[in-house]
Amino acid sequence: MIRAGIVGGTGYTGVELLRILSVHPDVEVAAVTSRADVGLRVDALYPSLRGYCNAVFVAPTVENLSACNVVFFATPNGTAMLMAAELLALGIKVIDLSADFRLKDVAEWEHWYGMKHASPALIDAAVYGLPEINRAAIRSAQLIACPGCYPTAVQLGFLPLIEQGLVDVRHLIADVKSGVSGAGRKAELATLMSETGESFKAYAASGHRHLPEIRQGLAIIAQQSVGLTFVPHLTPMIRGIHATLYGQLGDAQLADIQAVFEQRYADEPFVEVLPSAAHPDTRNVRGSNHCHIALHQPQGQNTIVVLSVIDNLVKGAAGQAVQNMNLMFGLAEETGLRQVALYP
Amino acid sequence: MIRAGIVGGTGYTGVELLRILSVHPDVEVAAVTSRADVGLRVDALYPSLRGYCNAVFVAPTVENLSACNVVFFATPNGTAMLMAAELLALGIKVIDLSADFRLKDVAEWEHWYGMKHASPALIDAAVYGLPEINRAAIRSAQLIACPGCYPTAVQLGFLPLIEQGLVDVRHLIADVKSGVSGAGRKAELATLMSETGESFKAYAASGHRHLPEIRQGLAIIAQQSVGLTFVPHLTPMIRGIHATLYGQLGDAQLADIQAVFEQRYADEPFVEVLPSAAHPDTRNVRGSNHCHIALHQPQGQNTIVVLSVIDNLVKGAAGQAVQNMNLMFGLAEETGLRQVALYP
Amino acid sequence: MIRAGIVGGTGYTGVELLRILSVHPDVEVAAVTSRADVGLRVDALYPSLRGYCNAVFVAPTVENLSACNVVFFATPNGTAMLMAAELLALGIKVIDLSADFRLKDVAEWEHWYGMKHASPALIDAAVYGLPEINRAAIRSAQLIACPGCYPTAVQLGFLPLIEQGLVDVRHLIADVKSGVSGAGRKAELATLMSETGESFKAYAASGHRHLPEIRQGLAIIAQQSVGLTFVPHLTPMIRGIHATLYGQLGDAQLADIQAVFEQRYADEPFVEVLPSAAHPDTRNVRGSNHCHIALHQPQGQNTIVVLSVIDNLVKGAAGQAVQNMNLMFGLAEETGLRQVALYP
Amino acid sequence: MIRAGIVGGTGYTGVELLRILSVHPDVEVAAVTSRADVGLRVDALYPSLRGYCNAVFVAPTVENLSACNVVFFATPNGTAMLMAAELLALGIKVIDLSADFRLKDVAEWEHWYGMKHASPALIDAAVYGLPEINRAAIRSAQLIACPGCYPTAVQLGFLPLIEQGLVDVRHLIADVKSGVSGAGRKAELATLMSETGESFKAYAASGHRHLPEIRQGLAIIAQQSVGLTFVPHLTPMIRGIHATLYGQLGDAQLADIQAVFEQRYADEPFVEVLPSAAHPDTRNVRGSNHCHIALHQPQGQNTIVVLSVIDNLVKGAAGQAVQNMNLMFGLAEETGLRQVALYP
Repeated sequence: MIRAGIVGGTGYTGVELLRILSVHPDVEVAAVTSRADVGLRVDALYPSLRGYCNAVFVAPTVENLSACNVVFFATPNGTAMLMAAELLALGIKVIDLSADFRLKDVAEWEHWYGMKHASPALIDAAVYGLPEINRAAIRSAQLIACPGCYPTAVQLGFLPLIEQGLVDVRHLIADVKSGVSGAGRKAELATLMSETGESFKAYAASGHRHLPEIRQGLAIIAQQSVGLTFVPHLTPMIRGIHATLYGQLGDAQLADIQAVFEQRYADEPFVEVLPSAAHPDTRNVRGSNHCHIALHQPQGQNTIVVLSVIDNLVKGAAGQAVQNMNLMFGLAEETGLRQVALYP
Repeated sequence: MIRAGIVGGTGYTGVELLRILSVHPDVEVAAVTSRADVGLRVDALYPSLRGYCNAVFVAPTVENLSACNVVFFATPNGTAMLMAAELLALGIKVIDLSADFRLKDVAEWEHWYGMKHASPALIDAAVYGLPEINRAAIRSAQLIACPGCYPTAVQLGFLPLIEQGLVDVRHLIADVKSGVSGAGRKAELATLMSETGESFKAYAASGHRHLPEIRQGLAIIAQQSVGLTFVPHLTPMIRGIHATLYGQLGDAQLADIQAVFEQRYADEPFVEVLPSAAHPDTRNVRGSNHCHIALHQPQGQNTIVVLSVIDNLVKGAAGQAVQNMNLMFGLAEETGLRQVALYP
Repeated sequence: MIRAGIVGGTGYTGVELLRILSVHPDVEVAAVTSRADVGLRVDALYPSLRGYCNAVFVAPTVENLSACNVVFFATPNGTAMLMAAELLALGIKVIDLSADFRLKDVAEWEHWYGMKHASPALIDAAVYGLPEINRAAIRSAQLIACPGCYPTAVQLGFLPLIEQGLVDVRHLIADVKSGVSGAGRKAELATLMSETGESFKAYAASGHRHLPEIRQGLAIIAQQSVGLTFVPHLTPMIRGIHATLYGQLGDAQLADIQAVFEQRYADEPFVEVLPSAAHPDTRNVRGSNHCHIALHQPQGQNTIVVLSVIDNLVKGAAGQAVQNMNLMFGLAEETGLRQVALYP
Repeated sequence: MIRAGIVGGTGYTGVELLRILSVHPDVEVAAVTSRADVGLRVDALYPSLRGYCNAVFVAPTVENLSACNVVFFATPNGTAMLMAAELLALGIKVIDLSADFRLKDVAEWEHWYGMKHASPALIDAAVYGLPEINRAAIRSAQLIACPGCYPTAVQLGFLPLIEQGLVDVRHLIADVKSGVSGAGRKAELATLMSETGESFKAYAASGHRHLPEIRQGLAIIAQQSVGLTFVPHLTPMIRGIHATLYGQLGDAQLADIQAVFEQRYADEPFVEVLPSAAHPDTRNVRGSNHCHIALHQPQGQNTIVVLSVIDNLVKGAAGQAVQNMNLMFGLAEETGLRQVALYP
């Protein structure tokens, strides 16, 4: 059994890790930390876990995590970078769901995240945990930077187009819609149900932290810098991300592009390319680790439209983290992640 | 492997059975019927099942089901009673999620369901599939009448009170709220999002088909007839039932009643009695087979308030059906049902 | 023109007052206070008011309100009682939407609200602002205690039954469901969309502050003390209250009770008694000042079920406050309140 | 008083017209038709109208409408074109909320709407009812083709950019999100709450009927044909449209463009240009006739992002129709439309 620790067990990605790991056949949840809730049973805070989790919150110290084989950071940005080195030194693998190790350019990270990076030496060692791109590197990694939710949906949608040179990478547009759980479990006016229910809006249209992460990922694929306009939106639902991606084609036609996508993802356990003319619903991936993708070329013009959906808390966070863990520990990649989406 | 058939695979209870059975370790989904969709892949209709289900819809004939060990009816009322006898004669176990075999009094059934019962001889043989009451009988049953969603939540809430004679059974009130998936997957004005979203209402306050079923169940426990007022409501969410139950106490005090409930359900894998003063949320059982119960005695007066919540499609339908199947086939009762609720 | 001031203009009842008063033909909004937002345009905080409101937030001082003819308190409990006396002394009418002057028994108020009452001498002078009961007193009042949202829905539902002695007042049950805007505009975990969306729960089942207010109101009607069990619930929508009320009848039959209700409310501009067997939806009063009521006597037994719905922010707060203002200033009672509910 | 008739009074745009016209100071609702509900009181079908509307449904005949001064068609496509000529011949003004007279090119109309046009001779006479573009023509029109909901939001968002030649009209993108009321009041699986709640999806990405309407409108402004990719989405809320528009700039900078928009809409009663860097919420126009617009130029690059929101049933349908009526009858344009959005 893999002994797993979760730092920051009281946010939505933390409880989602617990949902998955509590019934993972090869994992024992060995430690769950919460500075504010030390001594409280986890299932007292999260009654959904009654019958599945006997853990009690402990303080987030290296000592409390020292018996773990792997530690997940489901913390706000800026925490994992303070503890990762010490854990790695103990031979503990680290999977960071926050943004601390996602950007390779420290200066850019510090610009977007508004703080000094505490552990720049680890950035190079960190493997970006998108298995569809980095599977081999993930298998041997000690430190994983789990992709953000928006970057997962957007990169999986653009990936085959860019790999095959089918779109003009100078003019990419990602119009992306997220459920409100992406904002986290924080007492804030802006995400009250009275504020977000029955309403739709864009936010951070002038610049969002996931922009440089997406740009970095796409540039690696393209082997050149890319031009990207990224507008995130808040949609009145709890879970789900829907990316609508626009690119300018050269000569390629839809049927060929459909084939490219199907071939690229044929062996991927968690990416489904829907038939031509389909429209993926976020509900069909709710609670599952899958990404559903569909393609359109309106009126046969030279704009390709890619629709890419995930559950932001699963493939966009906790599920992808567990997928990484499975790879790092030599387990079958789908272990503990074979869950059908909750429809309706 | 148990070969399972599902008759009526296109409604919400049908697809919920598929969600559970597709990853059940001891089950192979051998046949899924839909008169309208013969020849279509199930996952073409339900993309949430892509990667989990290779079945193709077949016509609902006995022949198509004859290789099954168990057949689930996820059909409208009036269908199972037409096919059950023939399947049973082939040695196939039958689990009916509709109301056909729930009421022991044929005349009452015909009154509430507005049709002639086609198979009255089977009614006595049918075991009412509420494991918390009928576990032993279920193990040896050939035909199960799965309880309705409202009756499950209400009976589990009143059960310990009535068993112990703690409430006046002449004056019980069940004020129950359901998500809209309880209305099924039918094209109807009344359950459009524009009609039910952001709104709350009672319905069938003068008489609902689940009333006689609840009354029958409570009367069996009480060993006398009971007086029950049952008012169902529609709440703007998809899954979940919340029963608020009121009874008049004699001398009992809350602490003792709490102990009675905890003891009664101590060994039940799917019933959780929350601590005193708690309020169960339906979200904490969403997608899981659990029932959460909490007790209140406002101002120490003689009214006891029981709060009982389930997911109407799981413990109120498909999950409970699988729980029955596990018992009928000698499997561990929780097999395939260890799923943590989807929170948030 | 009536010069109106609003103290506490940044909560949901404050902005709802602005929604109504901005287009009220006889009112000029003369002052809107917010300690935190002094100097900010009101429509910068609430873009829904662009084009309707040129006001700028001012500090909540008596001086800033001294040119008003009427001041509304849309403040948390405990504020109006500090300022009311001084405003009244200036000849300014005061309409308090908070609970400060609702309970006539100071000790009980202090028990439920957990603070010392700062202005007990004014309690007797305050008129309880439920026009359907107190219209005459309201016309000549200087200080109005606006009813709470739950108390409005419950009292209007029970009123004719109790006035006519049709129910046993020792055993009343009010099972009431509220949208989340009732919790106010405060940064709190419990009312995040991720916490309350797609979920239903009871809260404060053991005792809620509106219980003594309802009990006081019903006792005045009954001219004796009443026994009431009141369980509030949170339903996943923004606006609306649905009260499901249960009482034990003597000999009365539904047709007679229906007539009693229709007669009692025949001249009330904002109470509609629906036809027998109807079920009111909260959506049909959303944004309007109306209360819709329907009656059921299930199976002809001796339990009467009253369904009573309002918009908690309108008839349950700001609309009722303006209805009181109209009466106090001799305007037609419906002035500025003729708005059809927003359906769908 | 203007005597108004509504043909098709049972859909969402019909009841929305009734919501507005019932309290319009210069209008008397003289006839409301519904083939299926002849003889039924309108407020029996729509209890939200109790106290506001005494009308009884009549059959949709010219005779029943002959006493009207204006007739609104809130009908499915293909109905207005059958009756308009006869009404116009009687001197009755006609305002069509359906698509029958929106496209000037009959062949294109017949292609997208899949039927033969019954009244092509009237198409030229019809004035496209977008007051922000066609105010003068509307004043003297006898027949108005009210714009679709998507076309209203998109055209108002692109209008100043195209008028001033600020964007490349060959590469426009409109990524637009609509609440489910846009799908109308029809019993359909696809718009059940269980199907659309808590989920997000694109639809008709390969071609939607509003595409040629938008293209026609933008081409008139641009005085050349335009290249437009239009992807509509369904968002889990009832009312509201949010258009996110992308265009490629030449040299223009955000501050200048902001000034262009503010100047263009300075005198428009129903278009509000928000301050730079704002993000309009659909909730802030819910139930009102306003359009809110905000501008972004991410990272100072050459892509301009316009955010444009309306209530699809008001500015996108019934409210705009009444705005047209006011102009046609010489009333102040805002008459009966001064309603603050319902927030929260």
